[in-house]
Amino acid sequence: MNPLTFKQDRPLDLIAIGRLCIDLNANETNRPMEETNTFTKYVGGSPANIAIGSARLGQKTGFIGKVSDDQMGRFITNYLEKNKIDTQGVTVDQTGAVTGLAFTEIKSPSDCSILMYRDNVADLKLHPSEVSEDYIKQAKVLLVSGTALAQSPSREAVFVALEYANKHNVTVFFDLDYRPYTWTDEAETAVYYNLAAEKCDVIIGTREEFDMMEKLLNINESDDHYTASRWFSYRAELVVIKHGGEGSIAYTKDGDSHRSGIFPAKVLKTFGAGDSYASAFIYGLMNQKTVSEAMKMGSASASIVISRHSCSDAMPTIEELQNYIDTAEYEPVV
Amino acid sequence: MNPLTFKQDRPLDLIAIGRLCIDLNANETNRPMEETNTFTKYVGGSPANIAIGSARLGQKTGFIGKVSDDQMGRFITNYLEKNKIDTQGVTVDQTGAVTGLAFTEIKSPSDCSILMYRDNVADLKLHPSEVSEDYIKQAKVLLVSGTALAQSPSREAVFVALEYANKHNVTVFFDLDYRPYTWTDEAETAVYYNLAAEKCDVIIGTREEFDMMEKLLNINESDDHYTASRWFSYRAELVVIKHGGEGSIAYTKDGDSHRSGIFPAKVLKTFGAGDSYASAFIYGLMNQKTVSEAMKMGSASASIVISRHSCSDAMPTIEELQNYIDTAEYEPVV
Amino acid sequence: MNPLTFKQDRPLDLIAIGRLCIDLNANETNRPMEETNTFTKYVGGSPANIAIGSARLGQKTGFIGKVSDDQMGRFITNYLEKNKIDTQGVTVDQTGAVTGLAFTEIKSPSDCSILMYRDNVADLKLHPSEVSEDYIKQAKVLLVSGTALAQSPSREAVFVALEYANKHNVTVFFDLDYRPYTWTDEAETAVYYNLAAEKCDVIIGTREEFDMMEKLLNINESDDHYTASRWFSYRAELVVIKHGGEGSIAYTKDGDSHRSGIFPAKVLKTFGAGDSYASAFIYGLMNQKTVSEAMKMGSASASIVISRHSCSDAMPTIEELQNYIDTAEYEPVV
Amino acid sequence: MNPLTFKQDRPLDLIAIGRLCIDLNANETNRPMEETNTFTKYVGGSPANIAIGSARLGQKTGFIGKVSDDQMGRFITNYLEKNKIDTQGVTVDQTGAVTGLAFTEIKSPSDCSILMYRDNVADLKLHPSEVSEDYIKQAKVLLVSGTALAQSPSREAVFVALEYANKHNVTVFFDLDYRPYTWTDEAETAVYYNLAAEKCDVIIGTREEFDMMEKLLNINESDDHYTASRWFSYRAELVVIKHGGEGSIAYTKDGDSHRSGIFPAKVLKTFGAGDSYASAFIYGLMNQKTVSEAMKMGSASASIVISRHSCSDAMPTIEELQNYIDTAEYEPVV
Repeated sequence: MNPLTFKQDRPLDLIAIGRLCIDLNANETNRPMEETNTFTKYVGGSPANIAIGSARLGQKTGFIGKVSDDQMGRFITNYLEKNKIDTQGVTVDQTGAVTGLAFTEIKSPSDCSILMYRDNVADLKLHPSEVSEDYIKQAKVLLVSGTALAQSPSREAVFVALEYANKHNVTVFFDLDYRPYTWTDEAETAVYYNLAAEKCDVIIGTREEFDMMEKLLNINESDDHYTASRWFSYRAELVVIKHGGEGSIAYTKDGDSHRSGIFPAKVLKTFGAGDSYASAFIYGLMNQKTVSEAMKMGSASASIVISRHSCSDAMPTIEELQNYIDTAEYEPVV
Repeated sequence: MNPLTFKQDRPLDLIAIGRLCIDLNANETNRPMEETNTFTKYVGGSPANIAIGSARLGQKTGFIGKVSDDQMGRFITNYLEKNKIDTQGVTVDQTGAVTGLAFTEIKSPSDCSILMYRDNVADLKLHPSEVSEDYIKQAKVLLVSGTALAQSPSREAVFVALEYANKHNVTVFFDLDYRPYTWTDEAETAVYYNLAAEKCDVIIGTREEFDMMEKLLNINESDDHYTASRWFSYRAELVVIKHGGEGSIAYTKDGDSHRSGIFPAKVLKTFGAGDSYASAFIYGLMNQKTVSEAMKMGSASASIVISRHSCSDAMPTIEELQNYIDTAEYEPVV
Repeated sequence: MNPLTFKQDRPLDLIAIGRLCIDLNANETNRPMEETNTFTKYVGGSPANIAIGSARLGQKTGFIGKVSDDQMGRFITNYLEKNKIDTQGVTVDQTGAVTGLAFTEIKSPSDCSILMYRDNVADLKLHPSEVSEDYIKQAKVLLVSGTALAQSPSREAVFVALEYANKHNVTVFFDLDYRPYTWTDEAETAVYYNLAAEKCDVIIGTREEFDMMEKLLNINESDDHYTASRWFSYRAELVVIKHGGEGSIAYTKDGDSHRSGIFPAKVLKTFGAGDSYASAFIYGLMNQKTVSEAMKMGSASASIVISRHSCSDAMPTIEELQNYIDTAEYEPVV
Repeated sequence: MNPLTFKQDRPLDLIAIGRLCIDLNANETNRPMEETNTFTKYVGGSPANIAIGSARLGQKTGFIGKVSDDQMGRFITNYLEKNKIDTQGVTVDQTGAVTGLAFTEIKSPSDCSILMYRDNVADLKLHPSEVSEDYIKQAKVLLVSGTALAQSPSREAVFVALEYANKHNVTVFFDLDYRPYTWTDEAETAVYYNLAAEKCDVIIGTREEFDMMEKLLNINESDDHYTASRWFSYRAELVVIKHGGEGSIAYTKDGDSHRSGIFPAKVLKTFGAGDSYASAFIYGLMNQKTVSEAMKMGSASASIVISRHSCSDAMPTIEELQNYIDTAEYEPVV
């Protein structure tokens, strides 16, 4: 099994909190954005993608966030509902904020970039008063994404959500998801990442993200064991550190570590790999899989999504995922 | 003829100053934006459209503006150059600004709306120091669009451009182009519209735009003759007041007025009508047409553009325009 | 006489518009502020000082401005009323703004400096809608001070006041009063100084202030005759250019110029010299004095004020002023 | 004795972090500020006052903060140094910030208020990179004041200081010192107060301040025992809750509570009572006093300061304090 326990008497499996935005993916690929002409619109944002992935896998999923009071915002809410995600925690901005945008550029499968619109966005205007203790305590899991910490009042809304989750034994997953462009100051970033991580049961991030958090405190080791054990001294039970092409390692408080393997895929773009991994990994952990099995499910989901055009709409159902695991080639990492 | 004179010894026919942005036009029409999926990217912004229209008609055209330092900004500069517009006056922002966006929604030919992204946009960061007196004095005409007055430092850049234009007898066309969403305060808007209009030779706007400017000064007549004569007491020689479906009236300082007729068109969308009208109207006035003939050219150009998908890319060449005038049905307004 | 005419059928002689603030003058003089311990509180701000000077001289005076909703704001309004200044045009801020402060440091009579508090100040929050056309048309003179142009919405309020004044033939005096610390950008400053000066009948400033305005337009002559004649081509009838210790020169539209002399004084500090000069100079011009006589009155008033501790409270009555002129030594400038 | 232990091998007794500002105390008392004329200048700000009190009592004291680059800032640094406070942790702002001001109004001994200038103040611009781990680890005690949490980057600087203090076993005193006027949102305030308090060894505040922190989490008991035990579940060893005229109660982790008595004083003003109390209370705890004895020292110090004109300059030496305790009447609270 795995070191996590989930409160079973809860009507919702997972509530995600944070960014809801729009991806505008270039239809013409393998060229710079200067030469693309048309875009397709998808719901995006890391916690949105994870929530959609979770719902596709059959989990009862909810969302806490804020959308703009315009066609973009309504498109997002409609899409979540079409995917059976509970949106009672999604409020509508009344200040004239817009929906964040991410224009994607796919020059080659390995050379992808994003052009972001993050000024005056609705998702960062979520206020602490819009986070309901009664709602959070109905969930087994709270999924927090780091981008929601970038600005007030969304930053404070997340800390309030963490208080409620800790108080009611909701298991908290923290997907670091650090995006430098929404932050103005690296030290500011690191302060809040560290404060939030202290209150989380599972922390998932890249080596570079953990390094950013440690640099603030004059820690420059970049040592996975040290990083994991630092968080075990707070609340964490499981720490996943990603090393890009070299795969991920999951550390558990009992001292074990687990490496994930890879399902080689026909890659269209790299976007969405982390979110699809997270949604299936969490699903596995919540459904009596071992850490290694859950990591394998994450890898399979990532392989499926990076071969498709969108991040959110590409998320597999549990049947697709199981079928893929059963039939695709899997390469364990030594 | 017409009341305007143009300095003939200038290498450039027209320089436009102001907004350069991107239109993202929904490919699926006759539905709300919540239900559209794909968008096509075009250069947009009123002065950009007029400059493109001017260049297509064969005028030597330049632009003074600012673009973002990203793929969107480079797409705009590339497109202007492809259309033979001189871009030596187009600077590149270095502060992390983005390109303004306009998502269009075409619910029906008569029910079109725009969703704007105007936070932290590069075009409003044009600084007075980036407006060259030497460049402006090379032009016969300066085309100013009101949206550039919305914020500092673009606002001050326009006033400096007006000083240079007046000093060197560059004929100034002021297209009011008032867009409430980029302004925070109607009185603030009206102050700068009035100050700028004092320094212009031709003023083109809707009745509502002139009303907004007059309301500030406790003038509530909404009277075209009064409006025109107020501006004749400053510098204006020609004032065009648009009355939507009822057509436009052009007043000249000598007391004459001229009504434009209409070329009935198969309307796809209403966007771009004003910009295409302006580019052909200015072309006519600069090429020895009477005011009435220039207005007819404007109407023809508008008819062509509103039957096509884009605003900028749809601008006709002089051959297309002349052919349309020669063959299409024309309804004079009584 | 002088070239100005004033509408005699007006109940108010002069309305000043703009800055109302607090001076905190060090009681210990001839030392740096690091070593001063106590301060005395006075009403300050250039137009406030001029209005107080005007009222002391017996003119019917009013004020248009905005004060903070606290003890500082009420102190200002009380003081104005005690000096018989009409305050119906003084509104009270409701946004939590503070009163601007000026801490003075008098190291020696010739080495004085000011430490300003100008963040979030009430005076710059005066809104165009708070400027009454009915009120302005009751005055013979409108006194505008340049600092009110530093920020929106005060900037637009001044332009609206200028429109009303011009419409109703209120003679406008523009005291440039350029304070670099309230402006963020010299080009921005210069644009609005120039636009405002076009609408004024009398312009009073230092050579450096006029240079700042001309530099924007690539004029680098620093030539008094040129400067004066540039403004005569707009609306001005009288332009006063100050050359510090070398005295001031007043130019009139008919080509004449006038130099002011000096009343040698026992100087305590240099603050307030310009404001006291302006109030008595305007008084003279409004009371059938020649330009030279009015300048002499200005010099006398300045001599009185710079020998006293405050700027505002030190303003002389007409009896004091006349007595000073009659008895003090006067040195004409050759 | 008391429950706290202090690392004895440290060269500094106490480092305070946070606000450095100027108090401008009206010399004329028993009247509203509208009627006061002169002010005396003192160094102010809660942590500054506590540091000055600490130094006067003979403790080796340092400060971490930021001052403006002007006469006010230099006055503060000079005054700290004159009081033998180490200022190597005091940096000078380079962004044009000003020194915060507090104008005091003493209508009667029991009706005192403050008019604050807190826009663009230097003290809130302290950056995490300006907080030195090497410096903090030289101290026995770190004194944190809540106002420093009001804005970024000072807020993050405090969290970094807390990390260093916890890492190096520096005993942290948290003086809540909640001033609503520097905060824009009560929920935002409460989030950071709670996060900081988790990392502190001693928490001192009024009942209202603790209520504000608890309200965020839907705790409305206003129960001292509950409040204290909530913080004991984190890091705190000692929690002091003040009940205004009814005195204070100190709770220790072992379940004990202690009430302070009062030294009846001839009150001039109430300002400075809390800061003088804190400085002597901390002194007592650091010098082998029991909690009750330390509270008595705090009360004596408060009595001395509220009978004098300033907060900082009025802080007693250890001789004055001891003499006062030995001779003044003391009323224990039952």
